[in-house]
Amino acid sequence: MNVAIVGLGLIGGSVLQALAVAGHPVTGYDADPATRDLARAGGWPVADSVPAAVAGADLVVLAVPLPALPTVLDDLAGYDGLVTDVTSVKGPVHDLAAKHGLRRFVGGHPMAGKETSGFAAAEAGLFAGCAWVLCLEPDETDLADWLRLARLCTALGARVVPVTAAEHDRAVAQISHVPHLLAAALASTLTENPLAATLAAGSFRDGTRVAATRAELIAAMCGGNAAAVRSVLSAVLGDLEAMRVKLGLDDPTGALIPVLRPAVDARRQWPPRPGPSDETPAEVGELLALGRDGGWITAVAENGATVSSLRPESGRNGS
Amino acid sequence: MNVAIVGLGLIGGSVLQALAVAGHPVTGYDADPATRDLARAGGWPVADSVPAAVAGADLVVLAVPLPALPTVLDDLAGYDGLVTDVTSVKGPVHDLAAKHGLRRFVGGHPMAGKETSGFAAAEAGLFAGCAWVLCLEPDETDLADWLRLARLCTALGARVVPVTAAEHDRAVAQISHVPHLLAAALASTLTENPLAATLAAGSFRDGTRVAATRAELIAAMCGGNAAAVRSVLSAVLGDLEAMRVKLGLDDPTGALIPVLRPAVDARRQWPPRPGPSDETPAEVGELLALGRDGGWITAVAENGATVSSLRPESGRNGS
Repeated sequence: MNVAIVGLGLIGGSVLQALAVAGHPVTGYDADPATRDLARAGGWPVADSVPAAVAGADLVVLAVPLPALPTVLDDLAGYDGLVTDVTSVKGPVHDLAAKHGLRRFVGGHPMAGKETSGFAAAEAGLFAGCAWVLCLEPDETDLADWLRLARLCTALGARVVPVTAAEHDRAVAQISHVPHLLAAALASTLTENPLAATLAAGSFRDGTRVAATRAELIAAMCGGNAAAVRSVLSAVLGDLEAMRVKLGLDDPTGALIPVLRPAVDARRQWPPRPGPSDETPAEVGELLALGRDGGWITAVAENGATVSSLRPESGRNGS
Repeated sequence: MNVAIVGLGLIGGSVLQALAVAGHPVTGYDADPATRDLARAGGWPVADSVPAAVAGADLVVLAVPLPALPTVLDDLAGYDGLVTDVTSVKGPVHDLAAKHGLRRFVGGHPMAGKETSGFAAAEAGLFAGCAWVLCLEPDETDLADWLRLARLCTALGARVVPVTAAEHDRAVAQISHVPHLLAAALASTLTENPLAATLAAGSFRDGTRVAATRAELIAAMCGGNAAAVRSVLSAVLGDLEAMRVKLGLDDPTGALIPVLRPAVDARRQWPPRPGPSDETPAEVGELLALGRDGGWITAVAENGATVSSLRPESGRNGS
């Protein structure tokens, strides 16, 4: 497959290198001339504009930050091939793609990263073993397009997770965005109590680690996924409020135990262990059920009729 | 100083060994005969009852869990020397000591621990560098007694933190108990969404780590400090509710930044770096001010008139 990658940061640069190493003809582009020079110096094929990069491509991978997407989508006018992206929020990108009239769009989110950023940090092996969300919207996404992308990503070693954009956005609110807000709320209690800072140790350190992220970055992550973050935060606030009420009862310890037990069990069962490999029919409903069960795809069959899949053990047991 | 240690788990056993190594005559006791045998086999002096252990002691260290304290306090009837404890909540222990008529009681809490427990895990060096809270109640605690204990603890290498029981309980609610409840609330969101468990990575792992603690233990910690935990949790809920409101505004990202910035700053300034060493008058008000500033004592002067103290740099600067 002939692939154009727009945006050559850590993720875009790694997609370019991974696909090239896998034998696909690739062309990269980045708005920053210095990044283009850097990629060219490494021997990678780079074009000097979006139209030049996507000319003749079967697939365009948009690997620019969310705020840069509208401009790049403008530059894509006239391109009618398959398009995917790698940004960390999927509902807003879905709407943006629709607004720009992209007919063959499949949102994506590789859950890969590292401490360093930029093309200099890119590596072909970044996606081995990582979960790569590919959005599948019933009555909208072309299943053949989706399977094409899934085959490409599994070939890079990724575990492809089929979900709707809304399901993705709610899940990342739970596992990343809301945790950042809780960490910030905990850390901010120190501002009025230096004594607490002096006594704090392990549970505080871990519970607030991500609150050292730049405020602008946390705000952009949460603000870009505001509806889902708000909804998950409301649920978490409800749970915490219930705990607060238990703390006011005559036997707070006894009252808290049944509230805490499911949480402790859930944490101890994480990360999920995969059960045995399975074959799943390549149908929209089956694929989305797989994703909802916490499962993923490791390969797409040659004929495209089935996918090799894994589900977490607990999901398989229905427990 | 002749010291009796009642309860020979990790902390009590380590206190026994640390004081013995520091040259103090010590006697230990534990309700469990096997623990007494283990300590004796190691060559440590052990008595077979609380009265036998405390006979002739200048100081009794109560190192039993909170639920066992009332029985031990009954066994102390008639002993009129100095008494301290090492449990992790100070208000309830203060009230218990008063109820049992202890006249010379100074609550304590060494912020030390490790993964393993029991006398077999005890070590003389456990308190080197650790914060050791010693409670100082205005118009109640005998300052000379407090300074005696402070000298003993600093000689073991501990950083002695002077605070009231209420200040201690609020601080540990902030840095340990409420973090456990937030971690549990986050972890419990997984129970309804296996997809989130599959996508979760670093920020979820760290933010929920302590939710793998036994539910009974989290409940006992929080329930034993219910009033302070409830109050801190209310404040944190208020902050989170404010964030939830910002998420519903037209520009959630812009609205969140000023709310998040103080939290990020507080986390980045943690752990506090000590400023230059200072001398502080050994007076109740001065000592409590030191503790409130996040400061601690490294030594008590020979004449007991001053203490060597350190304050966090930011506290010194008043920033």
